[in-house]
Amino acid sequence: MGDAARAIASGLAPHAIVSDVGSSKEAVATALAEALPGATVIPAHPVAGTEQSGPEAGFATLFAGRWCIITPPDGVDPAALNALSDFWTALGSKVELMDAAHHDLVLAVTSHIPHLIAYTIVGTASDLEDVTQSEVIKYSAGGFRDFTRIAASDPVMWRDVFLTNKGAVLEMLGRFSEDLTALQRAIRSGDGDTLFDLFTRTRAIRRAVIEQGQDDERPDFGREHGA
Amino acid sequence: MGDAARAIASGLAPHAIVSDVGSSKEAVATALAEALPGATVIPAHPVAGTEQSGPEAGFATLFAGRWCIITPPDGVDPAALNALSDFWTALGSKVELMDAAHHDLVLAVTSHIPHLIAYTIVGTASDLEDVTQSEVIKYSAGGFRDFTRIAASDPVMWRDVFLTNKGAVLEMLGRFSEDLTALQRAIRSGDGDTLFDLFTRTRAIRRAVIEQGQDDERPDFGREHGA
Repeated sequence: MGDAARAIASGLAPHAIVSDVGSSKEAVATALAEALPGATVIPAHPVAGTEQSGPEAGFATLFAGRWCIITPPDGVDPAALNALSDFWTALGSKVELMDAAHHDLVLAVTSHIPHLIAYTIVGTASDLEDVTQSEVIKYSAGGFRDFTRIAASDPVMWRDVFLTNKGAVLEMLGRFSEDLTALQRAIRSGDGDTLFDLFTRTRAIRRAVIEQGQDDERPDFGREHGA
Repeated sequence: MGDAARAIASGLAPHAIVSDVGSSKEAVATALAEALPGATVIPAHPVAGTEQSGPEAGFATLFAGRWCIITPPDGVDPAALNALSDFWTALGSKVELMDAAHHDLVLAVTSHIPHLIAYTIVGTASDLEDVTQSEVIKYSAGGFRDFTRIAASDPVMWRDVFLTNKGAVLEMLGRFSEDLTALQRAIRSGDGDTLFDLFTRTRAIRRAVIEQGQDDERPDFGREHGA
């Protein structure tokens, strides 16, 4: 990250605005600021995209109606911040300003942990001895196939997300593991009330995600049914 | 389960074929056989549906091209099995026969554990003190929103799935937890190779799921993009 930034350093105009679009912000902010002392570094993260990566995966409405989080460093030039904000607004994004450390915590739970557990369950399913890969694929419509989409994301990008957002990811993973252990105990002891209470609460989050335009309201993501 | 079956027992013709469509098969098979000693009990599980439940959630092509797993008990009447198999084929399903215990293991990994971890992460995200529910919803496009769909499934049905498939669910949950702990250790120690290797392997499963017609091939499940 620092190396790539240093490679462009000599080509930058004084006070050039440098931003990025990565999913970890605190480590990136530090590396860019160190590598580019003459530039105005303002990290950003458009929360948009599909499981595909690279220029060919883009499309005209990729950012429309999606949030772009900008994490301005202390003492940033307000004009530079406005310019970057206007850039994202022009692409159709809604812009939010956030502290880099808080961004990393929020994205750990809304993006990084979901990816980690999707990668994990797809790996677990493909390594079983008593259930074949062919069976896993045939019966994936029971829920598993949703996870395979996320687990098809770019391996290099996601390796780097986990290495650069280690602290927040490990903290959120600890919370998740505690909660999963509590459910495991409930299943083992036949405590249906604990299961029912959680399974009821989580529906409200889904409704809010749809009401706020963050997901497709059609059942099953509007998947086409029928052969 | 046994109570509901006993309530219909007196209304059944001798040797009537009784089947079901639930997601746990071994416990159901035992309960139905005990409650209906005069009937021909053949449990079944169509692996199809959306996050919505009940008659209103049905549609004409619900079963088209989807697998229906039938778990015939030992010594079942072949004519009865053929009749049930023909019923599901007529609805558009592809039929597979499987031992009830093996079904429960396969579905634990392709359906029950995915639901359990989706419910868990949505619960974890909504209980945080340092990240608000509003933030979780706004930035759900980073991956989290896929999990909210599954976590909006019927709470009563899913409570009962976990209570009736306890053994297989706990076994698969143990495997998942071991694998997740290994990734946690890799993140903590900065072992990018372990992360990269897993994240590469999981893409092949996604490709197979799509090639075998079990999911939408369009990126992002074909979600509509743009406000």
